[in-house]
Amino acid sequence: MAKTDQPISLLTTEQKSELSELRAQKFETHRATVQTLEDLLYKPFSVLDHGFIRVVDYMGNDSAVVQAARVSYGAGTRKVREDQGLIRYLIRHRHTTPFEMCEIKFHVKLPIFVARQWIRHRTANINEYSARYSILDNEFYIPAPEHLARQSSTNRQGRGSVLEGSQALTVMRMLRDDATRAHAHYVEMMDISGDEKDQADSPGLARELARMNLTLNFYTQWYWKVNLHNFMHFLSLRGDQHAQYEIRAYANVMLEILKKWVPDTFDAFSDYRLGAAELSAKSIIVLRQMLAGEKVVQSDSGLSKREWRELMELFDTNT
Amino acid sequence: MAKTDQPISLLTTEQKSELSELRAQKFETHRATVQTLEDLLYKPFSVLDHGFIRVVDYMGNDSAVVQAARVSYGAGTRKVREDQGLIRYLIRHRHTTPFEMCEIKFHVKLPIFVARQWIRHRTANINEYSARYSILDNEFYIPAPEHLARQSSTNRQGRGSVLEGSQALTVMRMLRDDATRAHAHYVEMMDISGDEKDQADSPGLARELARMNLTLNFYTQWYWKVNLHNFMHFLSLRGDQHAQYEIRAYANVMLEILKKWVPDTFDAFSDYRLGAAELSAKSIIVLRQMLAGEKVVQSDSGLSKREWRELMELFDTNT
Amino acid sequence: MAKTDQPISLLTTEQKSELSELRAQKFETHRATVQTLEDLLYKPFSVLDHGFIRVVDYMGNDSAVVQAARVSYGAGTRKVREDQGLIRYLIRHRHTTPFEMCEIKFHVKLPIFVARQWIRHRTANINEYSARYSILDNEFYIPAPEHLARQSSTNRQGRGSVLEGSQALTVMRMLRDDATRAHAHYVEMMDISGDEKDQADSPGLARELARMNLTLNFYTQWYWKVNLHNFMHFLSLRGDQHAQYEIRAYANVMLEILKKWVPDTFDAFSDYRLGAAELSAKSIIVLRQMLAGEKVVQSDSGLSKREWRELMELFDTNT
Amino acid sequence: MAKTDQPISLLTTEQKSELSELRAQKFETHRATVQTLEDLLYKPFSVLDHGFIRVVDYMGNDSAVVQAARVSYGAGTRKVREDQGLIRYLIRHRHTTPFEMCEIKFHVKLPIFVARQWIRHRTANINEYSARYSILDNEFYIPAPEHLARQSSTNRQGRGSVLEGSQALTVMRMLRDDATRAHAHYVEMMDISGDEKDQADSPGLARELARMNLTLNFYTQWYWKVNLHNFMHFLSLRGDQHAQYEIRAYANVMLEILKKWVPDTFDAFSDYRLGAAELSAKSIIVLRQMLAGEKVVQSDSGLSKREWRELMELFDTNT
Repeated sequence: MAKTDQPISLLTTEQKSELSELRAQKFETHRATVQTLEDLLYKPFSVLDHGFIRVVDYMGNDSAVVQAARVSYGAGTRKVREDQGLIRYLIRHRHTTPFEMCEIKFHVKLPIFVARQWIRHRTANINEYSARYSILDNEFYIPAPEHLARQSSTNRQGRGSVLEGSQALTVMRMLRDDATRAHAHYVEMMDISGDEKDQADSPGLARELARMNLTLNFYTQWYWKVNLHNFMHFLSLRGDQHAQYEIRAYANVMLEILKKWVPDTFDAFSDYRLGAAELSAKSIIVLRQMLAGEKVVQSDSGLSKREWRELMELFDTNT
Repeated sequence: MAKTDQPISLLTTEQKSELSELRAQKFETHRATVQTLEDLLYKPFSVLDHGFIRVVDYMGNDSAVVQAARVSYGAGTRKVREDQGLIRYLIRHRHTTPFEMCEIKFHVKLPIFVARQWIRHRTANINEYSARYSILDNEFYIPAPEHLARQSSTNRQGRGSVLEGSQALTVMRMLRDDATRAHAHYVEMMDISGDEKDQADSPGLARELARMNLTLNFYTQWYWKVNLHNFMHFLSLRGDQHAQYEIRAYANVMLEILKKWVPDTFDAFSDYRLGAAELSAKSIIVLRQMLAGEKVVQSDSGLSKREWRELMELFDTNT
Repeated sequence: MAKTDQPISLLTTEQKSELSELRAQKFETHRATVQTLEDLLYKPFSVLDHGFIRVVDYMGNDSAVVQAARVSYGAGTRKVREDQGLIRYLIRHRHTTPFEMCEIKFHVKLPIFVARQWIRHRTANINEYSARYSILDNEFYIPAPEHLARQSSTNRQGRGSVLEGSQALTVMRMLRDDATRAHAHYVEMMDISGDEKDQADSPGLARELARMNLTLNFYTQWYWKVNLHNFMHFLSLRGDQHAQYEIRAYANVMLEILKKWVPDTFDAFSDYRLGAAELSAKSIIVLRQMLAGEKVVQSDSGLSKREWRELMELFDTNT
Repeated sequence: MAKTDQPISLLTTEQKSELSELRAQKFETHRATVQTLEDLLYKPFSVLDHGFIRVVDYMGNDSAVVQAARVSYGAGTRKVREDQGLIRYLIRHRHTTPFEMCEIKFHVKLPIFVARQWIRHRTANINEYSARYSILDNEFYIPAPEHLARQSSTNRQGRGSVLEGSQALTVMRMLRDDATRAHAHYVEMMDISGDEKDQADSPGLARELARMNLTLNFYTQWYWKVNLHNFMHFLSLRGDQHAQYEIRAYANVMLEILKKWVPDTFDAFSDYRLGAAELSAKSIIVLRQMLAGEKVVQSDSGLSKREWRELMELFDTNT
């Protein structure tokens, strides 16, 4: 999280002064408040080459989860379990509704192709910058050299080794040239009337049309608001190693924010979701046999080769 | 809202002391804060004979709506419209996403038959008191005499005149007796083992079964969290004169809370939703003719008798 | 599923003749069709003492899941994996969207307290019988003797042993008497005007009020429509042994229907969800140690006693 | 709908033969069936220059809406209202749940910038072609000359007059050249390893990265499934004259499909939604005064100039 301190060159001057103003304001409240998260409000964290993510607002904390659970379970609960234990119990048994009682709202700047993956999560609220209405800046994503990965030869939606040398240079040049030209033409099309500027405000092609010339690595931005349950679901999918690196970069920053916001929930989430594994009925049988000292081989296990390999890897056994 | 000051006999002693504690706490925050709503936090408003509603937490205010809209529309917006005008514009054109950026969370105590209507709104988050887990108090709703309405003779789901005299007394006695007996038996069934109390903690019928003996006017309670857009949708349906009185009583209190939370949004909502009317294509033609001075009669209008009557009533014209 | 053949005494005469009519109709269609499910259309299965469930309509089949997945993954998929293997892959990796492409619609008759649990699943479409508008029949649920369970002494929301002898008789008498009286008064209140029947259509208390006198074991009914993904999620929760018996009785019938509708999906669902178990990060470490031949005890494991016990039970090991 | 007959050059050969196969199949079903919609199954309608839309499957019809409503309102309903009248009643009073009982599933090919607007409707199910997994064809949208609109000078998200002559040619050339180059480089980057083809299947840049070089007018495709209520909501927004032309082109085709699927619902929807207008509380007062013969002017009306103008235009009055 050291990134907090870096120069916020990602913001426009206007955004920067707005954030400073907002940051300077302090209010009194009776609401549940999280000091470690307050310290991050209005501070953008940089992600990728021009993106950022910052917390705009939040509602609730670990105690709000507990409080909501106790409405469900009644007064008896209080004596039975301590707060932390109750949160672990709720996560473990997938009692999701108490976690829906907290909300967090982000301001995110991200490439359009990342936004297209992100928005598949339908359970959040979104306000995106409108390129029908306003003009997008000349900012696009170019992968850092260490992320210029080859197509995986084994996984149709995965990455393999990194491109190097002249190949890497060629790719980066193409990406950069095409995006630069696309934006130049985008602006030119909207300003095409040239001298005939009698229509001062609408000289050229409509914005809603011109935008189609931009490439998918251009940055857009949005406000994204989500409840704590759906937030964790998003993080478990998009923070996973199978997620595309570019969206994982955002998920990783948000995992750090989750930790500062609701530390007890984060711990339970780490144990029961992030670090957990689901065993199929057939895998359970295999493990039972192995624990009973039996010798089991893939061909008799009912598992496919891939499932077998993943099961063995999970338990570090060399069979 | 004078109800704020009345004795909060509706809460258990434990709830009261918990609220006092919470109310005494004050925190510093950088978040958007609404002073008039802060003043209501942790204060229950009584509804019906044993119910209440209180604000537990909130996120955002009128400015948060504007701020979200400006992410969508870009910087240009700022100069064009003042905040209040922008909110009116958004409500009028049903641009709903900026209103989804605010949330409010309530603690509500309500009769089960009201809860059954309420929960049909699927876009909120709910934690309800669990009668599988805990025991419901002996509290049930009996309508005040002025709400003991007859079935409407014209509307199959409406109310007519009020029952009076011995009829009213008979109804109230039946409701009270049956609920009282239901709860007594509910408790008795859970404690039925009598002397054979070797099973100290589980003497009788399981709670999850015993609860089925309660009548639908018993009170339950829940935490209910909703975003501002869905909240207004709920209020426009449940605050409407066609809604059943008992749920409208809750909606009316929440309309007052809405007004204190987001006054500009409330004003626009009042003008463009609560006080608005939708005209069908056929009704528009009728009005056009009338405004042009033509004489129009129902039989030629293409409207049903009911639609015609409602249109005439809307415009106070005696045709 | 032998229940199909039993007399459908659960339906009203009107419902029965409507179903016969519908069943007699046959149409030609180009749509995906499942013969084993067609055979069940319009045939109610009885559940509990007066409830039923029947399939009203459906959209899609196993092939529709595959077809949708292939839109996502492109033509290449076809060669790589057979249909059944693809469905297993999708379930295993929680690629949920292809399963959202199928829908099923049920007509269900169920006790109100079961309906209250059921409706917590917000991702389905529901049309419930309106007791504001119409009058509920005198039908209520009384548990069969073998389901008259005591409160569990170890689990606050579970059941223990079965009540017997005079205790059982007392409970059943109370439930029956209170429900019978509640309905008699319900009817009487709506008809209270007695001789003064000038208001022919609205003699007594409004239906929307009278209904509050009914107990929670009265039967209601609804149409319930859900997509295949959310249907499986519902079944994994409500078909689980921790679910209350009364809702599980419905889930069990629906599991049989699922099997007839989409047999390949059902198989994968059985292996990867119904029979699966999730291992926490800490549990994985414990198992790794055990598989490596180490001796592990609960006190050093980082697991709570309950987690430890459940883990040992899962793998049938006597430690 | 004459478009049905045009050559389906929009489909790949593989898709065409798959559709022919599917179309040749006929099944018997007891389900609700709509003959006019059956005739359209598997027939794509062309939209824009390379897009299409076709119905893949459907569930329910006008009668299914009525049937669901009658579960809610009970048997009494049948006698009171004819089917058509009931549907009008439901639409008029926004009783939405019976319309949620029908579903329709489409296969759509559309430009990415249209897909980005479309997906904001979160209440549908979607399976999109994955460019992480497969390679997108070289197909992009170029507006027809009559749609090359200038930015509106009065509406920041609208269109004005059409570009002509050399300006139009310049814009079309830029769009075409940039898209063509983007796709050529996209393919080249994925095949960049040149001679070093030891990694037969993964010669170059990963697909999930290369796709970012494509412009937003490239075509993607998806399966889109939605219930009848949400479908009409989508159509009322995206078929509106304020929607961008390119998405409206799809909505217009879908309106024709709606008409063939559920003709009674379509009629009610046309009268009460598509052709309807909502009057604010202030506008109602103005109309009342005008109908009473009073002279009203904008400055006294409480309406903004824009609201006033729109109200006058709605009723064709020259004030």
